Amino acid sequence: MTAAQAVGAEQSVGDPARIRAHLDNLTKPPGSLGHLEELALRLGTLLGDPPPPLSPRCVLVMAGDHGVTRRGVSAYPSQVTQLMCRNMAAGGAAINALAGSVDARVVVVDLGVDAGEPLGEGILHRRIRRGTRDLSREPALTDDEVDRALEAGARVLEELSPRPAVLVLGEMGIGNTTSASALAAALLRCPAVEMVGPGTGIPPEAQQEKVRVVEAGLRRIRNGGAGQDHASLARRALAEVGGLEIAGLVGAALAARRLRIPVVLDGFISSVAGLVAKHLNPHLGPWLFASHRSAEPGHDRVLDGLGLRPLLDLGFRLGEGTGGVLALPILEGAGAILREMATFESAGIPGPAEGDSAP
Amino acid sequence: MTAAQAVGAEQSVGDPARIRAHLDNLTKPPGSLGHLEELALRLGTLLGDPPPPLSPRCVLVMAGDHGVTRRGVSAYPSQVTQLMCRNMAAGGAAINALAGSVDARVVVVDLGVDAGEPLGEGILHRRIRRGTRDLSREPALTDDEVDRALEAGARVLEELSPRPAVLVLGEMGIGNTTSASALAAALLRCPAVEMVGPGTGIPPEAQQEKVRVVEAGLRRIRNGGAGQDHASLARRALAEVGGLEIAGLVGAALAARRLRIPVVLDGFISSVAGLVAKHLNPHLGPWLFASHRSAEPGHDRVLDGLGLRPLLDLGFRLGEGTGGVLALPILEGAGAILREMATFESAGIPGPAEGDSAP
Repeated sequence: MTAAQAVGAEQSVGDPARIRAHLDNLTKPPGSLGHLEELALRLGTLLGDPPPPLSPRCVLVMAGDHGVTRRGVSAYPSQVTQLMCRNMAAGGAAINALAGSVDARVVVVDLGVDAGEPLGEGILHRRIRRGTRDLSREPALTDDEVDRALEAGARVLEELSPRPAVLVLGEMGIGNTTSASALAAALLRCPAVEMVGPGTGIPPEAQQEKVRVVEAGLRRIRNGGAGQDHASLARRALAEVGGLEIAGLVGAALAARRLRIPVVLDGFISSVAGLVAKHLNPHLGPWLFASHRSAEPGHDRVLDGLGLRPLLDLGFRLGEGTGGVLALPILEGAGAILREMATFESAGIPGPAEGDSAP
Repeated sequence: MTAAQAVGAEQSVGDPARIRAHLDNLTKPPGSLGHLEELALRLGTLLGDPPPPLSPRCVLVMAGDHGVTRRGVSAYPSQVTQLMCRNMAAGGAAINALAGSVDARVVVVDLGVDAGEPLGEGILHRRIRRGTRDLSREPALTDDEVDRALEAGARVLEELSPRPAVLVLGEMGIGNTTSASALAAALLRCPAVEMVGPGTGIPPEAQQEKVRVVEAGLRRIRNGGAGQDHASLARRALAEVGGLEIAGLVGAALAARRLRIPVVLDGFISSVAGLVAKHLNPHLGPWLFASHRSAEPGHDRVLDGLGLRPLLDLGFRLGEGTGGVLALPILEGAGAILREMATFESAGIPGPAEGDSAP
């Protein structure tokens, strides 16, 4: 698939053929910046050649709880979701340290934390309900709750000031690898056992229970008479096995395309949100960028489903947007080569001898 | 090998056991930041816990020409070395764009460019001679020239103001993958054919010639009665098949350890400089960090020889320090988690249930 096809003519700003020629004329052997040149081509096509700097940078950390945690599928109690949100608001979480090191703003949003009161200062209160229902027994969300979470997620991005030039999708929600595994298995039509992993670290028995829980949710989706088109399946899956923070991320991703903001996916859950969003709107695809390969085994399947290749492989299994923010300097570099490099002609340098250049 | 063993007790500032305990108490599942935690452990052990920010950042681009280019082992003519140095001084090369995007300073040093005059403004003139001799026929450098290049490289770093907190080893030199392949094959004691690749892009016939050229250099090293110890072999190899820019990088790396500055290796040539430097001083090892896996096939062997794992895999085959600078934000993030993250206790968050944590 060429970048032009990937981006879709109706969305292009830069001309892919012209950008490719520009890349080949820059003062380096053709193709010698490997994957960075593909990123540059995509950014230039989406945002214009040269693309503007990807600044300000923002990571949205959407948070929600999951009724399914009562089935023992998580290494941590649900209460940790709200404590970690407060920790992020206070600047003490991994995402704060890593976002700070690449000059990205952290915005924490409560889409559905199981707490009695708003979480307080530094956390946007957009709570739809106190956690989802137990997806192993009943639909996690009503259709109306899904709609409201999608809408809330979109509005958070639309109302951010200053508007970010690049967005990382982060999340916090004890139990959400279970929800994400079920969503991915439903959309990619694969067995639960191929998509369920250890999450943040559970013993094998708990992982087997997690598989059974996901299978129960999948049975309802498959027996529920969802339409065969991608969008209906995605909506049905969000209601049956989704999470409020995941639906919020889906809404933000869809809004990002409308606002022409590139979206950087983080790990497994964030990438599943990207997959759901792309099912709802296939035109979103070219705006999605993979950042890293998570240690969660299903992540590769999800990235394959999205047709994306990760930039980093650091063995992260944390979420929050941590891998996503570390990829931002690489994306920035991809735009910078188009903005700043001289061409062979402008620098007065002979290119490689004919026939000698690598493909 | 533990970090304590890797760093060597005599070089440690931070206590590895205490840093590991600190990492496990931070508000994240133990080990969930994967390779970043290993980097944090190493930085903390070398520089103290928490390590200081890795700023200012500098990439040294050492440049030199190679007499062996007359054997047709390169895709570009020798003249490109000086033109690219001037391009870097003018800010038009890939390293300028990428270093700028991560706030690193680019310092270009002429250790041995084949030009009649100094290259001019913005390029440090430390030229030992106009390129090396043809390593396929005679020793590329005299012992005295090797010494002077090592010394010049060290002094460049010592005299940099402000002193960098982290150093990337970059290079520019048409023909230098041939020299680096011969150095690596000599030090790792492997056949030329396993270490020679396409460089910036040569056809198969030229690559076969490159193998023969490297074999000729290796024969002189192996027949030359070099001492069996690592340091003698490294010095002998530098003289027989080395490059002035490579020797300059070796000198800078050795000086970096004296100054307690972490050294980030770039691609194949830069990593071979790290390998030579480690042969000259094994205590340098813990100060070396791999950045990316180059498309040059021998790079993996060299990184294995150094016991290093790359952070990025972007298919670069350019050099200049381009992959090295893109790894700087990841190293910075590794230090930032030790500096900035809260502990479970300080944030009032319960850890994982006993026995539930992943290894």
